[in-house]
Amino acid sequence: MASMSGFFFKTQPQIHSFPKTQKAHFTTSLKLPSLKKTRPTTRISSGLIDPDGGKLVELIVKESERDLKKAQVGNLPQIKLSKVDVEWVHVLSEGWASPLKGFMRESEFLQTLHFNSIRLDDGSLVNMSLPIVLAVDDAQKNLIAGSGSVGLLDSGGNPIAILNNIEIYKHNKEERIARTWGTTAPGLPYVEEAIKNSGNWLLGGDLEVIEPIKYHDGLDRFRLSPAELREEFTRRNADAVFAFQLRNPVHNGHALLMTDTRRRLLDMGYKNPVLLLHPLGGYTKADDVPLTWRMRQHEKVLEDGVLDPENTVVSIFPSPMHYAGPTEVQWHAKARINAGANFYIVGRDPAGMGHPLEKRDLYDADHGKKVLSMAPGLERLNILPFKVAAYDKTQGKMAFFDPSRAEDFIFISGTKMRTLAKNKESPPDGFMCPGGWKVLVDYYDSLSLSETGKVPEPVPV
Amino acid sequence: MASMSGFFFKTQPQIHSFPKTQKAHFTTSLKLPSLKKTRPTTRISSGLIDPDGGKLVELIVKESERDLKKAQVGNLPQIKLSKVDVEWVHVLSEGWASPLKGFMRESEFLQTLHFNSIRLDDGSLVNMSLPIVLAVDDAQKNLIAGSGSVGLLDSGGNPIAILNNIEIYKHNKEERIARTWGTTAPGLPYVEEAIKNSGNWLLGGDLEVIEPIKYHDGLDRFRLSPAELREEFTRRNADAVFAFQLRNPVHNGHALLMTDTRRRLLDMGYKNPVLLLHPLGGYTKADDVPLTWRMRQHEKVLEDGVLDPENTVVSIFPSPMHYAGPTEVQWHAKARINAGANFYIVGRDPAGMGHPLEKRDLYDADHGKKVLSMAPGLERLNILPFKVAAYDKTQGKMAFFDPSRAEDFIFISGTKMRTLAKNKESPPDGFMCPGGWKVLVDYYDSLSLSETGKVPEPVPV
Repeated sequence: MASMSGFFFKTQPQIHSFPKTQKAHFTTSLKLPSLKKTRPTTRISSGLIDPDGGKLVELIVKESERDLKKAQVGNLPQIKLSKVDVEWVHVLSEGWASPLKGFMRESEFLQTLHFNSIRLDDGSLVNMSLPIVLAVDDAQKNLIAGSGSVGLLDSGGNPIAILNNIEIYKHNKEERIARTWGTTAPGLPYVEEAIKNSGNWLLGGDLEVIEPIKYHDGLDRFRLSPAELREEFTRRNADAVFAFQLRNPVHNGHALLMTDTRRRLLDMGYKNPVLLLHPLGGYTKADDVPLTWRMRQHEKVLEDGVLDPENTVVSIFPSPMHYAGPTEVQWHAKARINAGANFYIVGRDPAGMGHPLEKRDLYDADHGKKVLSMAPGLERLNILPFKVAAYDKTQGKMAFFDPSRAEDFIFISGTKMRTLAKNKESPPDGFMCPGGWKVLVDYYDSLSLSETGKVPEPVPV
Repeated sequence: MASMSGFFFKTQPQIHSFPKTQKAHFTTSLKLPSLKKTRPTTRISSGLIDPDGGKLVELIVKESERDLKKAQVGNLPQIKLSKVDVEWVHVLSEGWASPLKGFMRESEFLQTLHFNSIRLDDGSLVNMSLPIVLAVDDAQKNLIAGSGSVGLLDSGGNPIAILNNIEIYKHNKEERIARTWGTTAPGLPYVEEAIKNSGNWLLGGDLEVIEPIKYHDGLDRFRLSPAELREEFTRRNADAVFAFQLRNPVHNGHALLMTDTRRRLLDMGYKNPVLLLHPLGGYTKADDVPLTWRMRQHEKVLEDGVLDPENTVVSIFPSPMHYAGPTEVQWHAKARINAGANFYIVGRDPAGMGHPLEKRDLYDADHGKKVLSMAPGLERLNILPFKVAAYDKTQGKMAFFDPSRAEDFIFISGTKMRTLAKNKESPPDGFMCPGGWKVLVDYYDSLSLSETGKVPEPVPV
């Protein structure tokens, strides 16, 4: 595993090649489309779960047409996107939101807000719980009025996509926020970042994305698309894929859970269950540990050998984070179906956070898994509730909590973990591998060294 | 029709009998179950739409068991219900909310809030957009803790129902309000009336209702249950039933729409479409015209002969009003399926109102019909969008708006109508029949005569 750590520090992503060892935890971006034909065709069908809508949506234009499309943007009215908007273009472009083919039109937006699902032409429902929308202001609306297509630029003014057959409709922010978060309290991180100051109109349409979205942060090779992940699972002959979404450092309780899940799947008769360890890579709130540091921490934990590289794929999920609890956990699960996962591990209070104004959690800790297990469009996905792990003093390691001897366990919350790391204190032996813990301590060290006292932004986009 | 007016002023409801004339607009409560066997069996199958879940839920206990159940309440912990709670018991008892068998348990509540639909054991979805829940406070929760059943009393302390196999769960009012109304702005009428000061717990369970809920306001005979309505539609050999929900006075634009709908249904090949004119009879906000006055107004309009009594059934829908726009219109439609309606007329901004704080409508005027047409569980219902009627100056009557000669039309809003009636002014000839208009003028007269200046409550419950 030691050789894998190098992947983090190379400035040029190793695209176009497989990792040299088949044991890689961290797979690189696998291929160009042109390589497909040269692949051996002997691999067996993996029987991966079908994407929503039956076919994985891919919105990136053919390489041969890219110059043409770039030139076309020059002849269209243009909208400059925010960082979060670009993350959504990335998500849409690779089909995480299949069968969506672009930013939502009003009928999709309304179904998302009211039903957390969208009806397809054949009458079936696919899950869709978060609005994936593009806000424009009055001036932009006037600029594009009468045009069927709009050019989309990144913050540097570079053309990244064309939105076709556009539809403009009202952006009722209050209603969107209330129906998505179940509160309108000021201080919701995604609302502050991406909604509060956004325009009063939404712009839907079909996307043509000019080339794959890259961030040039040394981590692009870990951002596998759903198609690439499916290819990797197929290559490994996975007969079950279980996804673990995370946006926090991994401790040994998580590792125990993932290992135990594989054991349960083997007990169920699966021959080769593969874990998709899938940290979220888009926008996160300021007090979360940034992606670069999390990836370093994950690597150290993996080096520790708790998870078996033979049956683990680590990749970055490009979605921004809403912190919308039971509404958002559906999105997290649905997107992983599109990447080939048919099992999803759901924890306590997934995508939850504290109430912005009141001294309580925003969501009931059990609602996430309950809502997920009942959600329309997710019937095909097997939901695996997170067993509670805690530090077992008698064993000196993380273990599943046994209520019959509750006094033997210590619960170490995220807040407690962060406080310990900030204070350079050590958690109990066996809570997290020393290398992983050191990354956390280093991160908080880097914060306190920062002159401004603000969270640094180590991931340029 | 003149003879029908008497129905309003009789103090004893004429239950147990059919109206003497088959032409009655206003049908009375039809029968006791014991009469069923003596009915002729010659009527043809009407092929009415199936209730949600396949079977109409009826929760009223057999007459022979009522004394026993009343006595049983005496031995149970007891909860006194509010007026609105009793209206929901009424709604549930007759199966308007089929397949719900009582106040929602948490799984039903969560599905309602997140998906506006509930999954049945066979995997199918039924629509359910409004939480039908019973709130209890800490003291009540402590009182019933450990008991499997609870007795429910009306405000006078009379036993009305037993709730069995109870489940107590948290009442997160903020989340309930945000997800139901799409806003948490203070001043939402139903919230002020029924949620704001309610308890922090919800009590779900299966209802046994001791006897049919009655209000003794002279209107009980117009409160036909879904079973009674189905019986009436079958008796009339209806091959289509189109429902018109209203909570406002009827003007000739409404009448035009209803007549035109019947014509369209005949054009579609139906032989005997029957109109269910179905004013809402539960809680309404203070500035709505109260039920008693609305029923008087409807009667006068019907006497005017615009609607044909042969194919019109007027009855009262016992639900309280949420004013929750696109969320509530689904409930209004779904409940009418249970009463046998397979066509539903939806207007502009159904169940809408002004924003409590801002100078705008709370909902987009088109969202109601859009959401309704896409709602899970309502696929079997035919949605008929309301055509816009306005006063056509060239014809001197209400007519469908023709945008090619917009200048010929006058729009008379509800606010304008009320202002005219309050000022004892007359609307243009042909807007509403004089008898119906006089009821409105009389109502506002009665308000200004009221010493307190407050809205009187002419409907004792």
